[in-house]
Amino acid sequence: MLKILIDCFGGDHSPQANVDGALAALAQYSDLHLILTGDQAAIRGCLDGKRYDAGRLEIVHAPEVIGCDEKPIDAVRLKKESSMIKAIRMLRDSDDISAMVSIGSTGALVAAALTRIGRIPGVIRPAFCPILPTMDGGMVGICDSGANVEVNPEMLRQFAIMASLYMENVYGVQNPRIALLNVGKEAEKGDETHQQAYRLLSQTQEINFVGNMESRDLLSGRYDVVVADGFSGNVLVKTTEGTALELLKKLKKDIYSRTIYKLGALLMKKMFADEKEFMNYQNYGGSVLLGTSKTIVKGHGSSRATAVAKCIEQAYLMEQSALAAKTEEIILKYEHYEY
Amino acid sequence: MLKILIDCFGGDHSPQANVDGALAALAQYSDLHLILTGDQAAIRGCLDGKRYDAGRLEIVHAPEVIGCDEKPIDAVRLKKESSMIKAIRMLRDSDDISAMVSIGSTGALVAAALTRIGRIPGVIRPAFCPILPTMDGGMVGICDSGANVEVNPEMLRQFAIMASLYMENVYGVQNPRIALLNVGKEAEKGDETHQQAYRLLSQTQEINFVGNMESRDLLSGRYDVVVADGFSGNVLVKTTEGTALELLKKLKKDIYSRTIYKLGALLMKKMFADEKEFMNYQNYGGSVLLGTSKTIVKGHGSSRATAVAKCIEQAYLMEQSALAAKTEEIILKYEHYEY
Repeated sequence: MLKILIDCFGGDHSPQANVDGALAALAQYSDLHLILTGDQAAIRGCLDGKRYDAGRLEIVHAPEVIGCDEKPIDAVRLKKESSMIKAIRMLRDSDDISAMVSIGSTGALVAAALTRIGRIPGVIRPAFCPILPTMDGGMVGICDSGANVEVNPEMLRQFAIMASLYMENVYGVQNPRIALLNVGKEAEKGDETHQQAYRLLSQTQEINFVGNMESRDLLSGRYDVVVADGFSGNVLVKTTEGTALELLKKLKKDIYSRTIYKLGALLMKKMFADEKEFMNYQNYGGSVLLGTSKTIVKGHGSSRATAVAKCIEQAYLMEQSALAAKTEEIILKYEHYEY
Repeated sequence: MLKILIDCFGGDHSPQANVDGALAALAQYSDLHLILTGDQAAIRGCLDGKRYDAGRLEIVHAPEVIGCDEKPIDAVRLKKESSMIKAIRMLRDSDDISAMVSIGSTGALVAAALTRIGRIPGVIRPAFCPILPTMDGGMVGICDSGANVEVNPEMLRQFAIMASLYMENVYGVQNPRIALLNVGKEAEKGDETHQQAYRLLSQTQEINFVGNMESRDLLSGRYDVVVADGFSGNVLVKTTEGTALELLKKLKKDIYSRTIYKLGALLMKKMFADEKEFMNYQNYGGSVLLGTSKTIVKGHGSSRATAVAKCIEQAYLMEQSALAAKTEEIILKYEHYEY
């Protein structure tokens, strides 16, 4: 039985979306056991009238909630009875609980993970790896996308190793193509950190490093993983999401500006719905934190049930594939590498 | 008479696009005098049969061309007879020539500008400021977008001052809203450099600093200038362009997948053409290099005549508004500022 904690508060549609997502995942995997943290009465209310295998679902009462505007470190220190911190503590203390899913405050989750949960031996810093759909129907992981605004070349190499194993083990991508985010394709582009990282990545046999990537090629389908410092990785992911959303909004506005466009759009209704669905991040699960000794998946704050279920699936697959052990094995090979 | 140099080689559609763009600008501004550099015979060929005021157009023979794959520093040093370096030398040596436009190698142009052309007094490093259209019909400048992969807080403040004056003087934006690119809105986000830059920008009375911007809001129309280090600014601009292009490509492909969609798209033909035109960077001119003592405008390598003419217009307006003098005045106020 695989035990996973679900932090049921902190999202825009919490706790209902979290509970519904949990039930969907529970129905999908018969060897899954879920522990929901949060206000017991509220969670019970969400479960009311639903059918599920009660033997595989627990509730742990945690009356407090961490808001998105709270200072992460303070929240971790002071809100011990919150759904998130209670889950983090259980994750740390229980040997038989292997993973946790949250859609609450990213800052608090990172702070809690870094201070309360250990790292995989050898890992310098854990990193986020969200997934975006590419235009050829594939997907690309971006690691790091915000956990570390400052990095060194060895950290970038570790992000590459961790994300490569993740794409292979969780999404079945064979021999993932790894690129380094840079301002140009040539090996000597970028600052000293990027130039050194380029050399380190080239020397790492366990990964399929294909060179620098310019950000305009992110969605081209030519890369499976993009390695970046947390600052520019964050810019990369959020710019892509922002541009896609703004364009769709503009398209919609323009369609409503003339009757003939509305007519045309009517014929293309299904296509537009498909495009919207294609770009809906709810379908791509959460941003996993790679490098922690126990699995932590962070879903988008506006996640609905489908997205929460996806996050649980990601955590489940990471555990099933023993991702942490595989990561440790490769990371340790390079632990005292001189560059 | 305002004299501007046009480097006529190095672009995908050179020299014809450069020459045609030059003629268009010449027709538009009667006090403009243009000096075209490049292979004389080739330029003459492009001018063949065209009508223009020959008294305001000169050709300076420069037989060499700098390729995009050449090492910038070597190209600047060795290709003295190239259209770009000859123009740079004339810009440096002639008091009555005030500006230059090129659509050739960005790396070579930056290297030449930094080593051959002086800076505005007080400016630490020049920075690129390209323009993107926003979804509400406005525009936003991004400074820096690639000239400086490493920055300090004072440089970021200077980028803000230079870009603010640029948007005001060249595009008529009143009291431009300046934002700092960061991984979150709060003042304490990002690394030490960004936190310090936030404080400096808040203390600079000559600009209208409105706080941090998350990259997903770039096209929202809520900002007129985004200040960034050259690395993440480059990621910001290229990700936006890349996402928009990939989405349009996908839309087109999907339209062709079913007859009913093709029919619908037929009714929306004008709208799609308008969207494409809206996103066509050829309409927004080049990326100006702010902070050099003489004006340098870099157009996109694939610029056609319209885009080249736009670049010349940008250079013309920068000179007309005495942008360099205005920049110097404010920059010098903060020159020895302790932070």
